[in-house]
Amino acid sequence: MTVLKNDIFIKALLKQPIKRTPVWMMRQAGRYLPEYRKIREQAGSFLNLCTNPELACEVTMQPLRRFNFDAAILFSDILTIPDAMGLGLYFTEGEGPKFKHPIKTAADIKKLPIPDPTSELRYVIDAVRLIRNTLQGSVPLIGFSGSPWTLATYMVEGGSSKSFQKIKGLMYEQPKQLHVMLDKLAQSVAAYLNAQIEAGAQAIMLFDTWGGMLTSEDYIEFSLYYAKQVRNLLKTDIDGQQIPTILFTKGGGLWLESMIDAGYDALGLDWQTDIEKARARVGNIVALQGNMDPVALYAQPEIIIEKVKTILQKYGTGSGHVFNLGHGILPDINPDHVKAMVNAVHEFSPMYHN
Amino acid sequence: MTVLKNDIFIKALLKQPIKRTPVWMMRQAGRYLPEYRKIREQAGSFLNLCTNPELACEVTMQPLRRFNFDAAILFSDILTIPDAMGLGLYFTEGEGPKFKHPIKTAADIKKLPIPDPTSELRYVIDAVRLIRNTLQGSVPLIGFSGSPWTLATYMVEGGSSKSFQKIKGLMYEQPKQLHVMLDKLAQSVAAYLNAQIEAGAQAIMLFDTWGGMLTSEDYIEFSLYYAKQVRNLLKTDIDGQQIPTILFTKGGGLWLESMIDAGYDALGLDWQTDIEKARARVGNIVALQGNMDPVALYAQPEIIIEKVKTILQKYGTGSGHVFNLGHGILPDINPDHVKAMVNAVHEFSPMYHN
Repeated sequence: MTVLKNDIFIKALLKQPIKRTPVWMMRQAGRYLPEYRKIREQAGSFLNLCTNPELACEVTMQPLRRFNFDAAILFSDILTIPDAMGLGLYFTEGEGPKFKHPIKTAADIKKLPIPDPTSELRYVIDAVRLIRNTLQGSVPLIGFSGSPWTLATYMVEGGSSKSFQKIKGLMYEQPKQLHVMLDKLAQSVAAYLNAQIEAGAQAIMLFDTWGGMLTSEDYIEFSLYYAKQVRNLLKTDIDGQQIPTILFTKGGGLWLESMIDAGYDALGLDWQTDIEKARARVGNIVALQGNMDPVALYAQPEIIIEKVKTILQKYGTGSGHVFNLGHGILPDINPDHVKAMVNAVHEFSPMYHN
Repeated sequence: MTVLKNDIFIKALLKQPIKRTPVWMMRQAGRYLPEYRKIREQAGSFLNLCTNPELACEVTMQPLRRFNFDAAILFSDILTIPDAMGLGLYFTEGEGPKFKHPIKTAADIKKLPIPDPTSELRYVIDAVRLIRNTLQGSVPLIGFSGSPWTLATYMVEGGSSKSFQKIKGLMYEQPKQLHVMLDKLAQSVAAYLNAQIEAGAQAIMLFDTWGGMLTSEDYIEFSLYYAKQVRNLLKTDIDGQQIPTILFTKGGGLWLESMIDAGYDALGLDWQTDIEKARARVGNIVALQGNMDPVALYAQPEIIIEKVKTILQKYGTGSGHVFNLGHGILPDINPDHVKAMVNAVHEFSPMYHN
């Protein structure tokens, strides 16, 4: 494997000294880029794009050609695992992801397989390998998965949800069944992420998009417990290189103290969480990633620059901060505004590092 | 005015000794009740129901006939003020509230009037008076309004929103204009709530439904500041009776320490916020209202009872807790499940009061 030319993202996650704050963006390969929309149109569907390693590699690389990002992230969907479990993922225009065979009974849970990622999710693993080779060590590659809880919400609801009535119904009425399901998901997620690591992923992020819809005790029992189980099953290094890990629970700002117990190197912060206070609460133990309001990218560049400066100042001096948005970039953002954000991190962060 | 026969809701908000924990429910007059759906159908539209004092009174009373609630809440919409300002509120099936004339320019903001509630919102004030008389002192009547920030979001977005792009755009690009608008809204909300108090409202709740979409610094500048301004303009008592106040910011659990500065007697908690930790943080200064997950009401009664017991135990001993959901009741809940919740508060809360 080639030597990593820019490793500040890895070092920031491990709280090792660096010269400036690294920056990347959730959904950085996506619809806000005209070159992405072109490939997406050629692919015919979002799923075709995800399942074709060459196209997935191409869209992963696109934002790196435009912006000085310090990491690439695998282009994929968070619902690849349930699809490999046989639930039949499909997308309807404007309604988001759906499953043909959502989980309805204990028998459905019992027969859920733990997919072998090297065969049943081979298109993802092939994409990781191709992207890693294509990057040629320019920046590290982030592998990712949805968290067991977040995957379970889609699998039981049959798609996106507002109230999460079905999954919470299962949680209240048949908690043991839900635990069986989450345990299988944790094993599946860990195997999937380990296969990504073996294929070349140099850091791992777990997206717990819907953990924040739970009460604090339900979060700990049904989401965080399985995020920790995933972490415990992950390879911690490969070829002597440590693989840092990030846990992001949207809406989880209240629970940061609990989250550090899951053993991840860094916690992702949504924009509602004050990063200065977050660092005071947990920042001596974990690194922090975030957390500009994605809507702020609609503002004029001079305002974006001020927002970047505020976040850098709030985190303060020393390593342990990865600049990012507090959620994925919105699809109609002007790419020039992204450039303003990235350049501002490059320009104004060195003063916080010795 | 008649003497209040059941004043435990008022006393809990003022942290005065009581014999059990009071309970009511956000949206307790609403679609989950068949008798509500009948009146709603007769009225022809939701707005007809809101603007007819007799019908508004009738649906306010309905839940009190079924359940041992310790408070009534005015049946109305949170968007009556922008409607009285001339924005033209209307409802489309399945899409929620909309405005015919949303705020688009500084000129729109400049010409916004501060409505006189006794004339332009007379249907609300008449409803308050009628409900208060109809209650005959059985339980106190809660008056309410949307918060200035929350009203502003609908006025600028033109209705509901997911990303709040327009209102945040105004906030980033023309913060002074937004402040002018919020100042007018704070004056309008205070005048409206004072008119409700004069007409018979015995407690006041400010609903800041969308404050939780802001960063912590934007929340303090654009939402909390104006909630405080409203509080400062409110009548604190009438005929020697103190009028307690509740501030509820959905998604505001991270900011409770800041919220107490706004001067409200109580803070409403969403279900994500742990009420035990919340009490430890701020409960020696303010009362707390909440916070069962509204989705838990889908569960079987025996599970609902356990959830109630957990919340009562988490708050612990002494006055200062009003039991409620962490958000409004969902429209398809079985009323028998509400009864299980209310009865459980009656049965299991006395042990926490001396």
